[in-house]
Amino acid sequence: MSFVFSTPVRFADVDHAGIVYYPRFFHLFHLAFEELWRTRIGPRAYSELIDRDRIGFPSVRAECEFKLPLRFGDTAEIEVSITRLGAKSITFRYRVYRSEPRALCAEGTVVCAVVDLARFVAIAVPDRVVAMLDDLVEKPSSI
Amino acid sequence: MSFVFSTPVRFADVDHAGIVYYPRFFHLFHLAFEELWRTRIGPRAYSELIDRDRIGFPSVRAECEFKLPLRFGDTAEIEVSITRLGAKSITFRYRVYRSEPRALCAEGTVVCAVVDLARFVAIAVPDRVVAMLDDLVEKPSSI
Amino acid sequence: MSFVFSTPVRFADVDHAGIVYYPRFFHLFHLAFEELWRTRIGPRAYSELIDRDRIGFPSVRAECEFKLPLRFGDTAEIEVSITRLGAKSITFRYRVYRSEPRALCAEGTVVCAVVDLARFVAIAVPDRVVAMLDDLVEKPSSI
Amino acid sequence: MSFVFSTPVRFADVDHAGIVYYPRFFHLFHLAFEELWRTRIGPRAYSELIDRDRIGFPSVRAECEFKLPLRFGDTAEIEVSITRLGAKSITFRYRVYRSEPRALCAEGTVVCAVVDLARFVAIAVPDRVVAMLDDLVEKPSSI
Repeated sequence: MSFVFSTPVRFADVDHAGIVYYPRFFHLFHLAFEELWRTRIGPRAYSELIDRDRIGFPSVRAECEFKLPLRFGDTAEIEVSITRLGAKSITFRYRVYRSEPRALCAEGTVVCAVVDLARFVAIAVPDRVVAMLDDLVEKPSSI
Repeated sequence: MSFVFSTPVRFADVDHAGIVYYPRFFHLFHLAFEELWRTRIGPRAYSELIDRDRIGFPSVRAECEFKLPLRFGDTAEIEVSITRLGAKSITFRYRVYRSEPRALCAEGTVVCAVVDLARFVAIAVPDRVVAMLDDLVEKPSSI
Repeated sequence: MSFVFSTPVRFADVDHAGIVYYPRFFHLFHLAFEELWRTRIGPRAYSELIDRDRIGFPSVRAECEFKLPLRFGDTAEIEVSITRLGAKSITFRYRVYRSEPRALCAEGTVVCAVVDLARFVAIAVPDRVVAMLDDLVEKPSSI
Repeated sequence: MSFVFSTPVRFADVDHAGIVYYPRFFHLFHLAFEELWRTRIGPRAYSELIDRDRIGFPSVRAECEFKLPLRFGDTAEIEVSITRLGAKSITFRYRVYRSEPRALCAEGTVVCAVVDLARFVAIAVPDRVVAMLDDLVEKPSSI
């Protein structure tokens, strides 16, 4: 199973070459990550995790292949799944599709550590986070 | 009448003081402007106006009063109305509300010229743009 | 007297119309403000004010007139002066010039409150801030 | 040999966790790439390549490891070298150091295709670009 977040490409998302500035694809990844929390737990779920529980998910590794440019006027659909739900880290896979005509524009993964923000050390993924993310873990048959 | 666009404050919209970076309020204004075109004409309405018709709406003046900070976790509701629909320019009024608990966070206006992008000179507001925006013009009684 | 900070327009500063996205002019204003602190006190001056002294300068009002577009390839020179150094607020004036060929592209003002970030209430401008900014106050004869 | 570009972390480069938002590291990479062109050829070198010659360098693959967070107040030094200068693509390596106390914060690579922007097809790396970049190619002994 996967989670999908759609957003129009914005007027200022492009660069001087007229296509979405490549670092913004990682921003699109993060928007989908934020929406996952909002949709599944609530609008303040991720901010409270950080502010109250002092737990964060800094990226330790990110990579992306860019296959097709996105342009202003396009709508981006960002699909989120999980390739590895580890003890102290989670690997998210993101695929960005242009919706019309439909095409895969970018595909990447982001490895997030789970950290105690006060000490900036890795901690175990909290149970409620595992519960929220569990259905997004890719099954062998789905590969 | 007014048009409203809602969006969560994003993880990276804040600055080192932990509140929405003030230039981003003008970005929120623009998002609402883009959504107005998308909703009322279609997802490629504004890009086609620029690319095919070579008409743009550069800002010639913008101002905003910031009344209350927005933070990550908040949802912003941006309300758009028009204070002046002139022959060659349009003055938009934007109000940004925090939705929960509801409060007015910022209020500003942006004067847009209507220009021929090829020559960068002011032209008359096209009739179909007037038709799209007409109901957003503030009535004397609504002030 | 004024303080000047120069920066190239960046590849992603433009929007789909190929000119600097207007909210970025306010970002240019802020870059000049940050550089003022860096140059006059030190690289961590502004972050320490916020983190250690818990004093911030949120904007309460900002306005700008956009006179000429800036494009990728241009260099922006942002000139900072002060039109009012009040007891609890400071009004900065920013002028953004394109350096080659030289032309005034934008001119605006930003009113900053000085606040205790812990309580988010206005406080007096600290003496050392007055000392740092004093020569930037516009003299009557310079208007 | 490598090329180095230094820039302060900006007030709005951070996210709600108070560290540089990870997509911005790729933006830092691009800033260093832009500065390389500016410094070695001239302020309008890259914009003219795109606008006049209609040649661009879209990223086809990017990856980065994040080792240490950067914060507001830090200065980032971005080091550029080339791991592969191919016929139709170039692989840049970027290392981002915090200058004080000095530490490696991120290291990544970006593969750029060289494309004819009018047709968006890969073309040979122009000779003058090879000449500009040649000394940045990592030598076996330097690995």
